Amino acid sequence: MIRSAALRLSSSLRNREPLGGLQFTKAMPPKNAKKKEVKKETGLGLTYKKDENFGEWYSEVVVSGEMIEYYDISGCYILRPWTMAIWETLQVFFDAEIKKMNIKNCYFPLFVTRNVLEKEKDHIEGFAPEVAWVTKSGESDMEVPIAIRPTSETVMYPYYSKWIRGHRDLPLKLNQWCNVVRWEFSNPTPFIRSREFLWQEGHTAFATKEEADQEVLEVLELYRRIYEEFLAIPVVKGKKSELEKFAGGLYTTSVEAFVPHTGRGIQGATSHCLGQNFAKMFQINFENEKGEKAMVWQNSWAYSTRTIGVMVMVHGDDKGLVLPPKVAAVQAIVIPVPYKDATQRPSLKLAINS
Amino acid sequence: MIRSAALRLSSSLRNREPLGGLQFTKAMPPKNAKKKEVKKETGLGLTYKKDENFGEWYSEVVVSGEMIEYYDISGCYILRPWTMAIWETLQVFFDAEIKKMNIKNCYFPLFVTRNVLEKEKDHIEGFAPEVAWVTKSGESDMEVPIAIRPTSETVMYPYYSKWIRGHRDLPLKLNQWCNVVRWEFSNPTPFIRSREFLWQEGHTAFATKEEADQEVLEVLELYRRIYEEFLAIPVVKGKKSELEKFAGGLYTTSVEAFVPHTGRGIQGATSHCLGQNFAKMFQINFENEKGEKAMVWQNSWAYSTRTIGVMVMVHGDDKGLVLPPKVAAVQAIVIPVPYKDATQRPSLKLAINS
Repeated sequence: MIRSAALRLSSSLRNREPLGGLQFTKAMPPKNAKKKEVKKETGLGLTYKKDENFGEWYSEVVVSGEMIEYYDISGCYILRPWTMAIWETLQVFFDAEIKKMNIKNCYFPLFVTRNVLEKEKDHIEGFAPEVAWVTKSGESDMEVPIAIRPTSETVMYPYYSKWIRGHRDLPLKLNQWCNVVRWEFSNPTPFIRSREFLWQEGHTAFATKEEADQEVLEVLELYRRIYEEFLAIPVVKGKKSELEKFAGGLYTTSVEAFVPHTGRGIQGATSHCLGQNFAKMFQINFENEKGEKAMVWQNSWAYSTRTIGVMVMVHGDDKGLVLPPKVAAVQAIVIPVPYKDATQRPSLKLAINS
Repeated sequence: MIRSAALRLSSSLRNREPLGGLQFTKAMPPKNAKKKEVKKETGLGLTYKKDENFGEWYSEVVVSGEMIEYYDISGCYILRPWTMAIWETLQVFFDAEIKKMNIKNCYFPLFVTRNVLEKEKDHIEGFAPEVAWVTKSGESDMEVPIAIRPTSETVMYPYYSKWIRGHRDLPLKLNQWCNVVRWEFSNPTPFIRSREFLWQEGHTAFATKEEADQEVLEVLELYRRIYEEFLAIPVVKGKKSELEKFAGGLYTTSVEAFVPHTGRGIQGATSHCLGQNFAKMFQINFENEKGEKAMVWQNSWAYSTRTIGVMVMVHGDDKGLVLPPKVAAVQAIVIPVPYKDATQRPSLKLAINS
């Protein structure tokens, strides 16, 4: 069921059925339980076809390909070893690249107080409906509810304010590998739209806008390389519209991939320039070289396990997963050993000439 | 403030004052704010002495040594780059070793339903008081509260039941690197006792008790190596008493370290044989080679960021952090360049002879 293939992106625009982009109506495995049971016995073949029912096909291929197991909480998924092997390959690449850029890893808490979370108005408006709140521990009610991070700008920046005082403290460049939670209600889809997902989030602060602008694009280039060099998926780099930009930021850049079977683009990863909005809200000031008080310029950027979902959508076919060689956990090479005079057989002739 | 030293474990039992073992009364940074401020300006020196006030000394050294930043939610700590560099070194070692043992990485959700969490009676009794509950998302109340994993036995084993059917599915050996939450109320201490911490948790299932027993000790040996080879801390391997064993398990083994300044031992990491208790509760059965139905034997094992706290406690001194060479992010070598006839000077003589 798992095969390996280089880039096979079709530019076909067939199947422009009203799928609602990449939102599928099914969050649970296909209902056709009897058929499923039969298939499970042999472990071969898929019930749905990519051309005919893309949403069901996708759900089935990630489960039958043992990438995902559905979990008893809707929108949460189990990432199985095939998936983690791919994620680790992407991690090893990206982590080494950002270390070359002198970005350090850190880890901030999963929890954030309401106060801090709500400090940047536009930001919280963007995330508030999706925030999960912890209100009890054991049998006790908490004094105040505590939020689970949907992203860590407001978790981290009060400390940036503390750590940054003079121009010598800049740039401050941190990254963390972690889980985040966005309790979306609509159309959970494995990898693509899940309530908890894994990602890295980089958070950097600079003395000048020029430095921030430059880093936004440097990181975006790493995201392009993840898609094109590792996942064999071509992407378009660009700047998002005002409406689509990160809540509270100055501008957002992204890599956008194309899923032929839906005929639609999908956001692959984002690199945001936050400008000075968060610096203002969290008072991230420094004394510059002239001895004047100035505000930092900030970026944040992230890619997530969504990358893996996009890969399945683009390369998978009616027989199951198709993995690009660089992320396949198992490398297989088929070596034909022909009989004498076998070159005269039509089937081998075909193989040799193709 | 950061120096590097090989093993310097004193066997002295001084300072057996009633500290309550490793539980400290202070969860927040030292109150002596004025003194702190002065120190911060130079970044040199500590206010407290390891001999005189171990608890305050520890809090101060992890903050001044930039390992930890205190967070505005009690019991949650920010792990700064020095810390993460150490954690990554331990990760690289351990992850490679368990991959040699054919253990695969996976990722299970952060959330667990009450139903599943409460399935194994002894287990939940052990954890229930510390479980954090999510009851709201956005402005909406959830239909049922959802727990945050304090450990993942009950999260994972319903799926082990699904995935394991015949003896060919065994052994099943999975591990995950993740965060867990235990909302303890008493005496939070950075690294040692925190409400959220990072760890790995291995969960394995075998056809026979012999295989399980063997793995318990194999993993325990890896934990010993983490402490002795990487953190330069000698540990004692052994089996815990019935009272101290893992809630719901059959028996627990651990590596125990010794902190000279408290005169007490501290649990370093644990490797549990779960026996068949969880298999019974979650119906993890398989058809053995004779075609009979049998129950699996299970283990779980973990080490956490506590390792780093133990290291600070053992090696740190009144001048600050002392890092064992294998985990120090920066390696420094001092090369003395003596003057002519310098060997005649008493100080250099001393250095050369020591």
